[in-house]
Amino acid sequence: MVSSPVVNMYPLSSYTFGTKEPKMEKDTSVADRLARMKVNYMKEGMRTSVEGILLVQEHRHPHILLLQIGNTFCKLPGGRLKPGENEIEGLKRKLSSKLGANPLSLQPSWQIGECVAIWWRPNFETVMYPYCPPHITKPKECKKLFIVHLSEREYFAVPKNLKLLAVPLFELYDNVHRYGPVISTIPQQLSRFQFNMMTT
Amino acid sequence: MVSSPVVNMYPLSSYTFGTKEPKMEKDTSVADRLARMKVNYMKEGMRTSVEGILLVQEHRHPHILLLQIGNTFCKLPGGRLKPGENEIEGLKRKLSSKLGANPLSLQPSWQIGECVAIWWRPNFETVMYPYCPPHITKPKECKKLFIVHLSEREYFAVPKNLKLLAVPLFELYDNVHRYGPVISTIPQQLSRFQFNMMTT
Repeated sequence: MVSSPVVNMYPLSSYTFGTKEPKMEKDTSVADRLARMKVNYMKEGMRTSVEGILLVQEHRHPHILLLQIGNTFCKLPGGRLKPGENEIEGLKRKLSSKLGANPLSLQPSWQIGECVAIWWRPNFETVMYPYCPPHITKPKECKKLFIVHLSEREYFAVPKNLKLLAVPLFELYDNVHRYGPVISTIPQQLSRFQFNMMTT
Repeated sequence: MVSSPVVNMYPLSSYTFGTKEPKMEKDTSVADRLARMKVNYMKEGMRTSVEGILLVQEHRHPHILLLQIGNTFCKLPGGRLKPGENEIEGLKRKLSSKLGANPLSLQPSWQIGECVAIWWRPNFETVMYPYCPPHITKPKECKKLFIVHLSEREYFAVPKNLKLLAVPLFELYDNVHRYGPVISTIPQQLSRFQFNMMTT
C-alpha cells in the first residue's frame, strides 16, 4: 500500500478563541483591489500569496477554519509575501497577524505542512486557474495553499471585525457559489491525506 | 521555498499508438453496474479501484490521456482491484489490460507515482465524495487516483471499441458537466506539481 501523509485533527473544543483589534481590509471594493494589485505589480512584479488550511474535527468529520468578513465572504488566513520573503516564514507572519495573540508568548508555533494547491491569476481580474494558462507568460499572481498542522491546544485571537468559522468539508464540497473556486475544491485536495481523529 | 514534486511531460508526438481487440464494458447500463457492484460487495466487501493519470504535453500545456467510450463518456484507465491485491501492482495490471500491447515485450514499464485523490462511494449509487461522509460506516467503494510517470517513448495499444484522447487541463477545469466530478477536478489536484516540459 502507498502510505498517505497524515493530518492529526483535534476537536474544535480543544482550542480557545479570543478577540483583538480589527484588521480592516485594505480595499473597499473589488475594483480598488485590482487597481492596487496593478500598482504593486509595476513596483514589485508578480504577487505571491500564501494561505493556510487549519483543520479541526467535529463529530469525527474534518472542518476548516475560515475567516468571515461581514455576513457572506469567507477567506483562508494568509496574505501577500513581501518581495523575496520565504513562503513558510511569510505564511507564519501572516497567520500571526490574522490569528495570533498580541503578546508573542501566546502565539501558536505554526507548523507549516504540505503545499496542497497552487493557483494562478493570468490578468488583473478576479478569475484564477489551478495552472498557468498556455500563452500566459506574465502571470499577475501565484497563490499557494498549505496545510497548517495544529497542536492539541492553541489560543487564537480573532480581529473584532472578523468571525472565525469551522466549516465542514461536506459544506465546502461542490459549493463554488458560496465559497468560490479555491476554497470549494479544498476537499478534493485533502482527499489523499489520512486524517487521524484525535480526542483530548 | 518548499520544493514541489516533479512530473516530466513529453510531447504527445513522442508516443506511438496502435490498436488491439475490443475491451467491452461489463455492464450495458448504470443500473446493471450498480446491481453488479452490490453482488460483488456481498461477496468481497468494499470495492477498491485504482486509476492512472497519464500526462503528456502539447504546446507546453499539460494534457491527460482519457479513454473515450462511444461519443461522450470519458474515463481514466484503471479498474477494480482483486481482493487483497496490492494497489500499485493492481494498477499496473489494469493499465496493461487497457493500454498495453499484447506481446509482453512491448508493454510499458509502468512507473506509478503519487496518489493525488481518493474518492468514496457511500451507497450503491453513482455519487462519490472526496471524503467519507460522517455517519457512513460502510462505504461501498474507495477509488484512488495515481500519477503515472511516462517514459520518453511508449507504445500504447488501444482497444478497438475505445478512443484514447489527450485532453488539456484547461478543457477539464470547471467542466463537471462533461467530465464528471472526479476527472474535472484533476487540474486542482495537479496544481501542486512542478511540470517539466521535455522536448525530444
